[in-house]
Amino acid sequence: MSYLKSPIVKFLVKQSLIEDIGPFDLTTSTVIPENKEITARYNARQECVVAGLPVLRLIFDELDPDINIKNLVSDGERVLAGRDIAVVTGNAASILTGERLSLNFIQRMSAIATMTAKFRDAIKPYKARICDTRKSCPNFRIFEKYSVATGGGSPHRFGLYDCVMIKDNHIAIAGSVKQAITTARRNISHTIKIEVEAESIEDVNQALEAGADIIMLDNMPVGDMIQAVKLINSQAITEASGTVTLENVNNIASSGVDYISTSAITARAGIIDIGLDVVRF
Amino acid sequence: MSYLKSPIVKFLVKQSLIEDIGPFDLTTSTVIPENKEITARYNARQECVVAGLPVLRLIFDELDPDINIKNLVSDGERVLAGRDIAVVTGNAASILTGERLSLNFIQRMSAIATMTAKFRDAIKPYKARICDTRKSCPNFRIFEKYSVATGGGSPHRFGLYDCVMIKDNHIAIAGSVKQAITTARRNISHTIKIEVEAESIEDVNQALEAGADIIMLDNMPVGDMIQAVKLINSQAITEASGTVTLENVNNIASSGVDYISTSAITARAGIIDIGLDVVRF
Amino acid sequence: MSYLKSPIVKFLVKQSLIEDIGPFDLTTSTVIPENKEITARYNARQECVVAGLPVLRLIFDELDPDINIKNLVSDGERVLAGRDIAVVTGNAASILTGERLSLNFIQRMSAIATMTAKFRDAIKPYKARICDTRKSCPNFRIFEKYSVATGGGSPHRFGLYDCVMIKDNHIAIAGSVKQAITTARRNISHTIKIEVEAESIEDVNQALEAGADIIMLDNMPVGDMIQAVKLINSQAITEASGTVTLENVNNIASSGVDYISTSAITARAGIIDIGLDVVRF
Amino acid sequence: MSYLKSPIVKFLVKQSLIEDIGPFDLTTSTVIPENKEITARYNARQECVVAGLPVLRLIFDELDPDINIKNLVSDGERVLAGRDIAVVTGNAASILTGERLSLNFIQRMSAIATMTAKFRDAIKPYKARICDTRKSCPNFRIFEKYSVATGGGSPHRFGLYDCVMIKDNHIAIAGSVKQAITTARRNISHTIKIEVEAESIEDVNQALEAGADIIMLDNMPVGDMIQAVKLINSQAITEASGTVTLENVNNIASSGVDYISTSAITARAGIIDIGLDVVRF
Amino acid sequence: MSYLKSPIVKFLVKQSLIEDIGPFDLTTSTVIPENKEITARYNARQECVVAGLPVLRLIFDELDPDINIKNLVSDGERVLAGRDIAVVTGNAASILTGERLSLNFIQRMSAIATMTAKFRDAIKPYKARICDTRKSCPNFRIFEKYSVATGGGSPHRFGLYDCVMIKDNHIAIAGSVKQAITTARRNISHTIKIEVEAESIEDVNQALEAGADIIMLDNMPVGDMIQAVKLINSQAITEASGTVTLENVNNIASSGVDYISTSAITARAGIIDIGLDVVRF
Amino acid sequence: MSYLKSPIVKFLVKQSLIEDIGPFDLTTSTVIPENKEITARYNARQECVVAGLPVLRLIFDELDPDINIKNLVSDGERVLAGRDIAVVTGNAASILTGERLSLNFIQRMSAIATMTAKFRDAIKPYKARICDTRKSCPNFRIFEKYSVATGGGSPHRFGLYDCVMIKDNHIAIAGSVKQAITTARRNISHTIKIEVEAESIEDVNQALEAGADIIMLDNMPVGDMIQAVKLINSQAITEASGTVTLENVNNIASSGVDYISTSAITARAGIIDIGLDVVRF
Repeated sequence: MSYLKSPIVKFLVKQSLIEDIGPFDLTTSTVIPENKEITARYNARQECVVAGLPVLRLIFDELDPDINIKNLVSDGERVLAGRDIAVVTGNAASILTGERLSLNFIQRMSAIATMTAKFRDAIKPYKARICDTRKSCPNFRIFEKYSVATGGGSPHRFGLYDCVMIKDNHIAIAGSVKQAITTARRNISHTIKIEVEAESIEDVNQALEAGADIIMLDNMPVGDMIQAVKLINSQAITEASGTVTLENVNNIASSGVDYISTSAITARAGIIDIGLDVVRF
Repeated sequence: MSYLKSPIVKFLVKQSLIEDIGPFDLTTSTVIPENKEITARYNARQECVVAGLPVLRLIFDELDPDINIKNLVSDGERVLAGRDIAVVTGNAASILTGERLSLNFIQRMSAIATMTAKFRDAIKPYKARICDTRKSCPNFRIFEKYSVATGGGSPHRFGLYDCVMIKDNHIAIAGSVKQAITTARRNISHTIKIEVEAESIEDVNQALEAGADIIMLDNMPVGDMIQAVKLINSQAITEASGTVTLENVNNIASSGVDYISTSAITARAGIIDIGLDVVRF
Repeated sequence: MSYLKSPIVKFLVKQSLIEDIGPFDLTTSTVIPENKEITARYNARQECVVAGLPVLRLIFDELDPDINIKNLVSDGERVLAGRDIAVVTGNAASILTGERLSLNFIQRMSAIATMTAKFRDAIKPYKARICDTRKSCPNFRIFEKYSVATGGGSPHRFGLYDCVMIKDNHIAIAGSVKQAITTARRNISHTIKIEVEAESIEDVNQALEAGADIIMLDNMPVGDMIQAVKLINSQAITEASGTVTLENVNNIASSGVDYISTSAITARAGIIDIGLDVVRF
Repeated sequence: MSYLKSPIVKFLVKQSLIEDIGPFDLTTSTVIPENKEITARYNARQECVVAGLPVLRLIFDELDPDINIKNLVSDGERVLAGRDIAVVTGNAASILTGERLSLNFIQRMSAIATMTAKFRDAIKPYKARICDTRKSCPNFRIFEKYSVATGGGSPHRFGLYDCVMIKDNHIAIAGSVKQAITTARRNISHTIKIEVEAESIEDVNQALEAGADIIMLDNMPVGDMIQAVKLINSQAITEASGTVTLENVNNIASSGVDYISTSAITARAGIIDIGLDVVRF
Repeated sequence: MSYLKSPIVKFLVKQSLIEDIGPFDLTTSTVIPENKEITARYNARQECVVAGLPVLRLIFDELDPDINIKNLVSDGERVLAGRDIAVVTGNAASILTGERLSLNFIQRMSAIATMTAKFRDAIKPYKARICDTRKSCPNFRIFEKYSVATGGGSPHRFGLYDCVMIKDNHIAIAGSVKQAITTARRNISHTIKIEVEAESIEDVNQALEAGADIIMLDNMPVGDMIQAVKLINSQAITEASGTVTLENVNNIASSGVDYISTSAITARAGIIDIGLDVVRF
Repeated sequence: MSYLKSPIVKFLVKQSLIEDIGPFDLTTSTVIPENKEITARYNARQECVVAGLPVLRLIFDELDPDINIKNLVSDGERVLAGRDIAVVTGNAASILTGERLSLNFIQRMSAIATMTAKFRDAIKPYKARICDTRKSCPNFRIFEKYSVATGGGSPHRFGLYDCVMIKDNHIAIAGSVKQAITTARRNISHTIKIEVEAESIEDVNQALEAGADIIMLDNMPVGDMIQAVKLINSQAITEASGTVTLENVNNIASSGVDYISTSAITARAGIIDIGLDVVRF
C-alpha cells in the first residue's frame, strides 16, 4: 500500500504546515534555545490500530530533514495503551513545532484504522469486507483511504473519477436504472466499473439486466438483502450500505454481501489519544 | 464573523473540488443530459445547529456560477429534523457533481456547531465560554473555527502564529515557567498574548508572578481550579482544559474559569445527517 | 462529455497562459490601441474533426471575460477546409494575446479527434472501438482524452490511479500472471478493474484463470488474436495493442477484439492547420 | 544549455507526476513487493538524437531520490536502434511508477531533437539555422525549446515576453509596418528586438526603413526571398517561414536567409520509440 | 502598457491578500456591520505621479467584485498634494479589509513613478532615457517595471531570460569580452540582444569588435563616456550605469548616451503618502 | 528568531527565483562552462547591520544544493564598509544565476535592520522600543519583520489576523471607541489583544474605560503623549505613531511610551550596497 508516496501527499502535508505555522511559531522560536537537542516518543494513550507513521517523515522532511525518526511499530499494528510507537531525535524547536500537526494526522488516522478494525472484527465469520464512502473530510481523503486500508478495510472509489456510481437522483433524471447504465456504459472507458444503487428487488433486477458491475443494496432490510444476493448470484459484486453500525453490521454481513460500505469508520471515528513525551532534554 | 471571506478559503474549496472530481465526474457527465435543469433542497435529517451555508456559494462559484442558491435558514440557527435549509436551482450536472462535497462541508461544520452549542448550553448558568483547540483536521481548521463560532463557542488561537502558548515541554527546556514567559515576552510583539499551562497551584503562582496573560489550568481537579481562580483574581484570564466532557463540563464551569477548551467539540463531533433532495426534475 | 469542466482544467489553462505571456505581451501591448475592438474567425485550413472549442471560453475568461465567443460548429463535427468554426468579438489586444495559445489547443485537439475518427472509420464494420494509451504529452493528457472521445474513440484509463494494468515487468517481478492478479485483487477496491497484458495464448489462459477483467493482447499476430478471442469467449474484455497503424487496424479489428489501443491517435497526430482571421478591424 | 535547471521545470515535472499518479499507482503499489530492487535500461528502439535525459533525475528526485541513474549517452548524441541510453537502479516500485512518465518526456523530446537534426542536416551547405515557433504543446514549451537546441536548432523566442513579433493582424490594426515598428520601439525596452513579418518586397522595404531587427519572409517564393536577402543586405536578420518541409527546406536555405522557422520540428515530430527494459530482477 | 493584465499579476495580488488577511481580518469582521455601505476616496497627501490604480480592481475583484471603483485620474498623471485619485463605493468591511494592501501597492508604485519622473525631468534636454535595473524587491518586480514605465522611464530587461547581460564575473570566467560575446551569440536565439559591461575604452573596443548590441558604460567618468559614445558611433546602443544620482544624472546624460540605468528610481524611491478617507458612512 | 524557517518562506523564495530566471538564465547558461567552480564573497560596501544570510541557503537549496555557504558574520551584527559577510563556493553558473536575487534579499533586509538600529540607538536612554507597521512591500512582509527584529526592533502585528487594531474608520462606523472595543471583545478569541487608535485625551479615556490592551497615540503632540501616558498609568500598553523621524523619535520616546511604530524603518529604508566578488576562478 503506498498511497502516501504520491506527490499530492507532500503537497497536502506542506499546506497543513503552512496552515498551522503561518509566518512562524511564536512560542518555540522565542522560548527554545536554537541548538537544543531532544528525544521524544509518540505514545499511544489508548489501545488502537496505528496508522500514519509515514506522515512523520513527510512533516519533518519539510520542517527539518535532520530529525531522526525511528518507528517502534508498523502501521496496521494493534498496540495497547501506553505503548511508544515512534521516537524522534533532533532539534528541539523543530520537533516541538511539528508536534501538534503530526499528532493531528496520527490521531485521526489511527482512529479510522481502529474503527475499521472494529467493524472488520465484527463480521469475521463472513466474507464481507468493510469499505468507506466519499463522506470524507475535504482535503483529507487520501489519508482516510490509507487508514481504512491500514485497519483492514477495503477503500471504496477515491472520487468521482475512478468508478461510475449511479444514485437515485441520476436514475430519476436518466429515466430508469437501465437507461442510466446503458448511457454510462456507452460513454465511459472499458476500464471503468459501473455501480448502481438498488432500493428494491425490482431495482436489483433492472441493474442485473442492464449489466451493472456492482449493485449497492441501499438501506435494505436484511431479508431483502438475502434475497438480492441469491438473485444476483455472483453476476455482480454486492455491496450493502445505509445506517450501518457496529451493532447491526454482523447481521448485514450474514446476508452474504461482498462489501459493506459505511461512513461510520471515517466520519464518526473521532481521534485516538496519542501524545508526544519528551524523554531526553 | 467572516472567516469564510478570506482568499485562502477559496483556495481550499477549489483544492477539495479537485480532490473529489479529478479529471472529471464519470457518472454525471455520462448519465445526465447536458442542459437539464433541476431544483434540489438541502435537508437536515437530524436536529442541528446549521453551519456552512456560505460554502455552497464558494463551491458552485467554482463549478458553475449560474447555480442559484437560496438559504432558507442562517448559519447558527437551530433546526429540527426534516427542515430544508437551502435550495439550489440550475444545471443538473453541476448540482450533482457538487452534491457530495457540499454535504461533506455542511455535515461536518454543522456537527461542530451543534456539539459546541451542546457544551455551551451545558454551562449556561456560568460565565465560562467554550473554546476549541489546535487538534483540528489538517487543512480544515478554518472551517472548524468558523463552526465553533457559529455554534456559540469562542475559537481559541488559529495557529502557532497568533498567540504564545507555553506547554510542559517548553517549560522543561526553558528551565521554569518564569524563565519561559520572560524570554517569550522579550522576543514577541507587544500585540501578542502569552498563555501558559499550569498543572498545580505552584505553577499558577509562578505564571502570575511572570505576568502571563492567560493561565490554562491543565487537567486540574475542580477543587484546585476554584482555588486557582481565586488566586488569579482577574490578574489573568483563566482557561480550563483536559478531558472535558458533556458530563463534567458544568462542574468545571462552576469553578469560575473564564474559558473551557476542548477538542470534544471538533475532533469528536462526527457528522450531522444532511441530504440533498431533488424536488423538481 | 465534460472533461473540460473540472477545476484542474482551469488551472492548466491558466498555467499555459502564464507560460506564453510571462510578465506581458510585448507586441500587443505596445502596438495595439487600448480600446480597439475587432471581430475574428477561427478558420479550418484543412478538413478535420473539430475539438477544443470550449477551451476558447476558458482562455478568454482568464484574459478578458468580455470577449464574446460564438461557436459556428460543435466539437466532434467534421468540417471541410475553409470552414469558419468560431467567431470572437471584443478587445483587439485581448484577442491577439490569446490567439496563439487558443490555436495551440485547438490545432492539437482537432488533430487528435481527426486521427481518432480515421481509425474509427477504418474499422467500421467491426465492433471494436479505438482507445488511446498513457503515452500522452505531460500536463496535456486531459485535453488528449477529451479529443479522443470527441473523435469517436473511447479513452483508456486516465492514469495509474483508475485501473490496474499489469505489464510484463510487473509479471516478472510478481512471479506469474496469476500471482500478480491475485495480489492486486486482494489489495484494490472492488470498484477497480484489472487489466493484464498477454503476449501468448498461454498468458491468456493464465489471465482468464486468475479472473482478469480485461486482457490486452499485446503485439499478437492476428491469427493468435482470433484464437484468444474465442478462448476468452466474453469472460473478459479483449483489447489489442502494439504497432497499430491505419493500414493494419482493420485486420486487427477483424479478429473480433472489443478494443484497440494505440498511441498513433495522440502522439503521432500532429496538428491541424487552423488560423485566426481578423474580419473586422 | 541549461533550460532544465529553472525552478519552473521542477514545478512542471511535479505537476505531470500528479497528473499520472493521482492518489496512487494502483498496480505497482499492490503487485510489487515494497523492498524489491531492480536495474532497468532505457533502450532506443529507433535511431534518434537523444534528448531529455536530465528529466529522469527530476522525476526520480520527486518520486524516490535514492534511485541511481547513469546516463550511457549524452543529450544531443545520435544513437542507433537498440542502444541503451541510460540505466536506473533502485526500488522496483519507484522505477515502475516513473517508467511511463519518463518515457513520455524522452520519447517526445528525442523526437523533436531528431527531427530538428534532420532539418539541420538537410541545409548543411548553407548558413541558415533551423528554429521552432510558438506552436508548442501547452505547458510543454520549455521541453520543446530544449529539445530543439539539443538537436542542433536555434530556438526562437520563448513567448510573448522576450521579443516583439509584429504580424499581419498587428500591422492591419496599427496602420502600417512602419507605424507598428515605430510605436513598438518607443514603448519597449532597448534590450528587446523587433521582428516583423513581410509578405512582399514592398513590406521588406518598409520594415527596413522602420529599422526592424529581424525580418521574417513569410510564405515567400524562393525567388522573392533571394531578392529580399539582397535588399536587406545584413541590415536586419532574415528569417524564412511558412510551409517549410524536409523537401523544400534546402531550397529555402539556398536563398541565403539566416534562419528558417518551422513548427514541423516540434508539432509534427511525433515520438521516438524508446522503452524501459528491466535487466535485473 | 499592459503589464498588469498578465495572469501572473492576479496570482501575486491574491498571494499578497493571503499574506495580509491570513484566516481572517479580526477587526473588520467583528467591528463592522455586515451590510454597511460606505464611500471612500484615495487621497494623495503629497505631490506625485500616480501609479497603480489598476491594482485596485484586481484587489477588490478578489475580495468583493461588487465594490465600485472610479478612477479620478489616470496612471502617469501628476497630481498635487490633496488630490483625490480614486473613489470606491460598496461594502464597508470589504473596503476596510483591502485598504492597507491597496495603499501598499499604490504608495510604492507612485513613489517609483514619481522618482522616475524626477530623473527624466533632470535630463530633459538630452536624448537619454532613464531605466531601472534588476535590483527589485523579490516578487514585486512586475509592479516596479510598470511604475517605471508609468513615470516616463524605459524599463530594462525583466529578468535573466529576456536579454543577455555579460558582466565582469562572466567575462573573467569566459576569458575575455570577445570570447563571452561569441559564445553567447552562438547559443542564444537570434531574437535576443547581447549587452556587455565595459569599464574602460579598451573594453568598449572589444565589445564593438565582438558585435555587442548594447554596451553599458559602467561607472565611467563622464569624459570617458563622451569618448566611448563617439567611438561606438551608433554601432551599438549605449547605456550608462553606476552611482547615478539626481545630482549627477544630467551630467551623465550630457555625454550623449542613449540610456541611463539606476536602482535609485526603484530601490530608493520609498513611498508616497496616500491615504483612504471615508467620505460617506 | 526563526521567521525564516516557515514553509511559506521557501515558497516565496522559489517564486522569486521563478520571477528572475523565467525559463532560463540566458547569460550564465551560454557563457559559463558547465563544470567551472568558483569561490565568491558577499561584501558589504557600506557600514550596516547585516540581515538575510539564512536566505542564501534557501536560494541555493533551490538552485543547487551543492553550493557551500559559510557565513562570516551573523545576522544582527554590525559590520564596517568593506567587510566580507559570507563566502560561497561551488558551481559558477549556479552562483552567478543566484547572485542578483540573493543580493536583492540581503540588500533590502540589511537596510531595514540598519535603519531599525538607528532608530533604536536614537532612543537608547528611554524604555520605548521601535516597531514597524503593516506598510510593507506586498509579498515581502515576512522578510521585513525578520529584519526589524534583527535590527533590534520589535515587530508589530503580522497582519489582519493576529491582533485587533481599531482605527478611525472603524470607530466612525461602529459609533464610538467604546462600542467598537466592546463588539470586538465579544467576538474575538481571548488569545487576541485589542489595540485602538486615540487621537485625543478624550479618546484615551474612552479606550481605557472600554479596556483596550494597547492604546496607540496617533499623531499626538509630545505634551499630550506625556499626559496620556500618565493617565493610562500601565493599565494598557502605550504606542506612539505618526510622522516619526530620526530627528523627533528621541523626543517622542521621552514621553514615556512603551512602543513607537513607524514605516520609516521599512518603507523608507532603501537598500544597503552589498556586492558579490568572485575571489577564485
